[in-house]
Amino acid sequence: MKVMTKIMIFVFITTFVFGAAYAQFSKPEEAIKYRKAVMFLIVQHFKPMGAVVQGKAIYEKDAFSANADVVQMLATLPWEASMEPGTDKGDTTLSSAVFDKPAQFKKTAESFETATAMLASTAKGGDPDAIKAQFGKVAQNCKNCHQKFRNK
Amino acid sequence: MKVMTKIMIFVFITTFVFGAAYAQFSKPEEAIKYRKAVMFLIVQHFKPMGAVVQGKAIYEKDAFSANADVVQMLATLPWEASMEPGTDKGDTTLSSAVFDKPAQFKKTAESFETATAMLASTAKGGDPDAIKAQFGKVAQNCKNCHQKFRNK
Repeated sequence: MKVMTKIMIFVFITTFVFGAAYAQFSKPEEAIKYRKAVMFLIVQHFKPMGAVVQGKAIYEKDAFSANADVVQMLATLPWEASMEPGTDKGDTTLSSAVFDKPAQFKKTAESFETATAMLASTAKGGDPDAIKAQFGKVAQNCKNCHQKFRNK
Repeated sequence: MKVMTKIMIFVFITTFVFGAAYAQFSKPEEAIKYRKAVMFLIVQHFKPMGAVVQGKAIYEKDAFSANADVVQMLATLPWEASMEPGTDKGDTTLSSAVFDKPAQFKKTAESFETATAMLASTAKGGDPDAIKAQFGKVAQNCKNCHQKFRNK
């Protein structure tokens, strides 16, 4: 419970700090390119963890943990760019629901940040069962957000 | 000196760990897309710091520090992808010099990692002059690597 509280505080602080730092897009296309770059990198670091969890790759604690750390950091980045006005048009799959339900979007984003922070923390512990369970929660967060805020 | 040693150790560890985690590209195009995404994000977080250093934007310690932290983390990522065989061809500005002089490339990459780690550390101190000086060193590292390993 204490660890969870610390993680929640960390997520809150980073969200707040990063929120102040990132709203610097000169045009909508730049915000779209930015968040797509972040999402692509998240997927690239998520996939090798998925392979381990599915038994398709050997579990190596340090490598898994490094990927979890990168995903945790990247998970804090794309939200400002996703809330830039007008960026539900153009070369994007962002749903207009982001602008219709900004509070719900923020909550969903924060849930993802919390889940990835927990995964990074769990990965450091090195317990494969705990890691698998938390990885599943992160994946569920991906799915949940995509269902609500990404166009097919 | 102690801080510098700690940073050097951190950079060494992250380089080593990340080195183990990232060589997972299914095709050359994926490695190219990966490193371009990282470089684009580095630029996006570097620009607002540059604006502050050049006096074009107000210095806010937390925002500057958040950007420096992101750049530090991102700085560890693109090297494996840059050394993937065959990725000096295609939609890229990577110079073949990377494959001709891999040791020099690695050294140049490590120098950039060290400089960005120092910037993140300096940013936490909040001394504008020290920050400006270290930002200049990071920028010099960008330029140096691009001159040697990026095609015009």
